[in-house]
Amino acid sequence: MQYHISGKMKNLKPSAIREIFKYAGDPAVISLAGGNPAPETLPAEDVRRLMNDALTQDPMTALLYNQSEGYSPLRQALRDYLGGGLVKESDDVIVLSGAQQCMDLACKVLCDEGDVVLCESPSFIGSLNCFRSHGVRLVGVPMEQDGIVIDELEKAIIQNRNARMLYLIPNFQNPTGITMSAEKRKAVYALAKRHGLVIVEDNPYGDLRFSGEDIPSIKALDDDGVVIYAGTFSKILSSGIRVGYMVVSKELMGKIVVAKQCADVHSSMPAQMLCHRFLTQRDVLAHIEKNKAVYAHKCNLMLDEMDASFPKEVTYTRPCGGLFIWATMPARIDSNEFATRLVRDSKVCVVPGSAFVVGDGALASSFRLNFSASSDEQIKKGIAACAALLKEMLG
Amino acid sequence: MQYHISGKMKNLKPSAIREIFKYAGDPAVISLAGGNPAPETLPAEDVRRLMNDALTQDPMTALLYNQSEGYSPLRQALRDYLGGGLVKESDDVIVLSGAQQCMDLACKVLCDEGDVVLCESPSFIGSLNCFRSHGVRLVGVPMEQDGIVIDELEKAIIQNRNARMLYLIPNFQNPTGITMSAEKRKAVYALAKRHGLVIVEDNPYGDLRFSGEDIPSIKALDDDGVVIYAGTFSKILSSGIRVGYMVVSKELMGKIVVAKQCADVHSSMPAQMLCHRFLTQRDVLAHIEKNKAVYAHKCNLMLDEMDASFPKEVTYTRPCGGLFIWATMPARIDSNEFATRLVRDSKVCVVPGSAFVVGDGALASSFRLNFSASSDEQIKKGIAACAALLKEMLG
Repeated sequence: MQYHISGKMKNLKPSAIREIFKYAGDPAVISLAGGNPAPETLPAEDVRRLMNDALTQDPMTALLYNQSEGYSPLRQALRDYLGGGLVKESDDVIVLSGAQQCMDLACKVLCDEGDVVLCESPSFIGSLNCFRSHGVRLVGVPMEQDGIVIDELEKAIIQNRNARMLYLIPNFQNPTGITMSAEKRKAVYALAKRHGLVIVEDNPYGDLRFSGEDIPSIKALDDDGVVIYAGTFSKILSSGIRVGYMVVSKELMGKIVVAKQCADVHSSMPAQMLCHRFLTQRDVLAHIEKNKAVYAHKCNLMLDEMDASFPKEVTYTRPCGGLFIWATMPARIDSNEFATRLVRDSKVCVVPGSAFVVGDGALASSFRLNFSASSDEQIKKGIAACAALLKEMLG
Repeated sequence: MQYHISGKMKNLKPSAIREIFKYAGDPAVISLAGGNPAPETLPAEDVRRLMNDALTQDPMTALLYNQSEGYSPLRQALRDYLGGGLVKESDDVIVLSGAQQCMDLACKVLCDEGDVVLCESPSFIGSLNCFRSHGVRLVGVPMEQDGIVIDELEKAIIQNRNARMLYLIPNFQNPTGITMSAEKRKAVYALAKRHGLVIVEDNPYGDLRFSGEDIPSIKALDDDGVVIYAGTFSKILSSGIRVGYMVVSKELMGKIVVAKQCADVHSSMPAQMLCHRFLTQRDVLAHIEKNKAVYAHKCNLMLDEMDASFPKEVTYTRPCGGLFIWATMPARIDSNEFATRLVRDSKVCVVPGSAFVVGDGALASSFRLNFSASSDEQIKKGIAACAALLKEMLG
């Protein structure tokens, strides 16, 4: 059979992270490549109990079809959890099959093929590939220590009149770990509003701040339906259950619901009922508070090991939360070669920076390190292997 | 905010079934409109136990990210369950978030905007809207008692050189209840193969045959990657868990997996682990055999009530399985008016035929009846209300 492959899918490659994930199945491999939460922070016993409760108390709600908008009690619990500062009167909440689906539905509803999506560069490959799969053109805007470069963003908006969305991860960005300052959030919001651009604010890691002060989300500034906000249970409850959500203006909600119907009818009911019970029957804030200590410890351990062993020519971010550190080698070192040699010779996985780049290869000498999913022992061994190879390649 | 809505989503309306579903939330309403399986056939206690086993025995597999292809043990169990006649050496199996996702991913991978998808007319609105949401043009091919009209199909293929897919529900079709004969399956396969057209064979109801002999699926004829096969756990285990699967040639699998990554990363792990345990630790064939008796009883009851009370000018199908009966009124009666008056005056829901029509409104005097989700009492009352209104409207 000779297949006709659509233009939008023809050149799309599998995500480098997903591919590296296959190596990670080898128990001998230390993976600093994934994006899993710290397994020890996930409340496995609570999940078992709450799921069992749901299937005992209300089995037919779990087993039969439900509304595309999501399980009503969960939608209400999310409104309560997120608060009126984030979910305004003019907003609605839809439950999704993971936050990734927010990118899929928003792009489908708002973008025609050939339209432009603006994003931070580097940015999360899963979202970038999702946008690419809709045939849009990605335009990357460079980052600095406190987030996206505003002048460059404005230039990009003006140069791309068919830009429909601006994709941002303001907290502990994937892959850089950078957090956008409050001033920049305001500036970005004002720019987007002025130019009629929808901001997609992806906030998977917001709950995982272990140092510094929380900064209000961009959605909190928004009374005019400019911002679509994506949240998830992946980092605080379970990434495997695939439950996320979108806060979106009531005006846009109708189209998003139609897109959701078309995609998968609705999200898995047992998982939705679990999330509802978790939000309403457990002390979620205390749970998150406890987890932060684990993340702080792991991040600090990794940074300490890097400080002690990495060559001085290698720089890296010092995140205040999230899962990732972004390391940058001298430009003469290619991160693909580094990552390939590292997994082949030392059985340690990292993600080469090229995976996250939008447009040209200017960031091809960086790589992403995950500190959440590994044990202390693995972090030490993994960083030691990175350091040894860095020294060798830097000569 | 003034939103730019994509061309493909601009004119798409919410599914009439989903909308009627909201009425069905009123406990006073008798819904013959939905597509839920018979609730009493779903093994609620087994689901609770198997889910609890999964979350006890292997919690971290349930809680963390997994592969986009699906939970490996479930993929193997599906190969074993479906057998080598359906899943050939050259095929692969991917787990999906319900069978609806098969339509979404196949259309995304195979169709550009403006391409044509051929389908039976009438056909399942959920799939039709999914295709529409990709900006493809639907071309309907009429049905007769033993399935799609072959001459008309050939004409449609020849007239639409940019037809990429042919969407079929060969067993107990939704909405008509019609089953395609073995001869027609062969003819359709030969036609599609000759013209390089991919067949998407949607088989949600195949396990629910309660009279007559099973007819081999079109996929069973296929050694050349012509057929994409969609199956689901929705009718035998649970529709709420949202687990389906696709059998697809290894050649096409790579692109489908990328599309799946982009859509939702992977399907909910607890639900996948439940399905794996259901297939490997329960006697699924005995379970299905028992269910068939329930479906036979409900269908026969509904047909008996219709035979006894419907005006002779109203005709209807006599399905050998599945969930639906398709009734056709004289052309002067509009099914939208019929369905609206029925729910308003008698609190009984059916789905007007217009929802399922592709292209023109030639089938606007038909409506779909679901016999699986209601009790005997509700079936009797619901059909009595239909009969009374039919008599009134036929004058």
